Amino acid sequence: MPLTRAGRPRLTTARRPGMTARDEILDAAGELFTTLGYASTSTRHIAESVGIRQASMYHYFKTKDDILCALLSQTVGPTLAFIPSLLGAQPALTAAEHLHALAAFDGDQLLSGRWNLGALYLLPELRDARLEPFWSDRERLRLHYLALSQGVVEQTGVHEAAADLPFRLVESLVNMWSVPRGPEREELPVHVADACLRVLGLPDGATAAVRARSGEVVGDYTRSLSSVPVRPLR
Amino acid sequence: MPLTRAGRPRLTTARRPGMTARDEILDAAGELFTTLGYASTSTRHIAESVGIRQASMYHYFKTKDDILCALLSQTVGPTLAFIPSLLGAQPALTAAEHLHALAAFDGDQLLSGRWNLGALYLLPELRDARLEPFWSDRERLRLHYLALSQGVVEQTGVHEAAADLPFRLVESLVNMWSVPRGPEREELPVHVADACLRVLGLPDGATAAVRARSGEVVGDYTRSLSSVPVRPLR
Repeated sequence: MPLTRAGRPRLTTARRPGMTARDEILDAAGELFTTLGYASTSTRHIAESVGIRQASMYHYFKTKDDILCALLSQTVGPTLAFIPSLLGAQPALTAAEHLHALAAFDGDQLLSGRWNLGALYLLPELRDARLEPFWSDRERLRLHYLALSQGVVEQTGVHEAAADLPFRLVESLVNMWSVPRGPEREELPVHVADACLRVLGLPDGATAAVRARSGEVVGDYTRSLSSVPVRPLR
Repeated sequence: MPLTRAGRPRLTTARRPGMTARDEILDAAGELFTTLGYASTSTRHIAESVGIRQASMYHYFKTKDDILCALLSQTVGPTLAFIPSLLGAQPALTAAEHLHALAAFDGDQLLSGRWNLGALYLLPELRDARLEPFWSDRERLRLHYLALSQGVVEQTGVHEAAADLPFRLVESLVNMWSVPRGPEREELPVHVADACLRVLGLPDGATAAVRARSGEVVGDYTRSLSSVPVRPLR
């Protein structure tokens, strides 16, 4: 059973995954925003869906924009947190290896959540300045992809306009959400990472070693994450 | 000045592009849906923005969904209409030539409109069955891309999962809408079409002739369209 904080009574027993009331609020909001729509969802809907009082929700989030910002940050935060490991890998990764690992990990993040949060990226409401922390993070990620991709096209001689496409290819996994859960879906991020290399002018035949090294780096990092205790002691 | 139909008085002088009141309604809806949001836009907003009475608008569209369906159809209709020319080209096009021309033309359609209508594709409201004509058309287009792409990967030996990616790459132009109007933006669709071939395993060095033939076919078709009189006589 999920833990709840003392002094913040729940109207009903929690039914959503997650350790904290905050996680449950985000999960409920993710469901409602991606199924009912952002504009059509009120903070009251979200509170009712979690089974808490609206006043309790304001303890965690002041506005609906705050909730959206936290949700969207979940789509870029884990990938940004992976970058230091990529930069510190020994022996150092080539631009192609770094990009492949980044794309495979990032794509997996986009596809493995409970709700298709990336589908919210093009909402008109996202232009609202109150989502600034999310936009800065996403731009940082885009520029990281771009710099790596530029490093590759300098070698291959493909037109520099291609350097924006790996980020876009990974992002397009948002449009492949309807592929049912299973092995085909789980393999999509690696296929997209392979495609990123081809888009930049590196053919499959020349990148077997790149893809093998990327697989190792992502595997090591993913295992290191899952060895961290998931439920913090309080 | 745009024409108006006799017997359907306008509250104000028309300010929007398009020959007919129907075009102006669609333009206003495109602006409001992509800036204010679909759920936040009422049919009354749209009528006011065009400068017609709400009752007059119902002459053209019965519901907000009908307007959305007509708008979204604009994002696939012209490309579907191009396919017969591609199939009938003499001498016959290869799968790679056909795909490149399709992607370049389709990408240009997505980027050249006044509003980023493709940004509406992931709206939760789109799952509504009343958009069925649009969904059928879009699925027809997706399957056409897929069949062409499968034809190419059979030759190159790239993993068949790549065959879904050309459609996704073109679609991702929706996320590049912020590139300012100008030569860089105008060239994006062709760069994306080139990238589609690389994703399927055909390197740039092997596709100069494919790209040249595609350019001819798209150029011929685009010129044939612009020679059609734009304002029908009444």
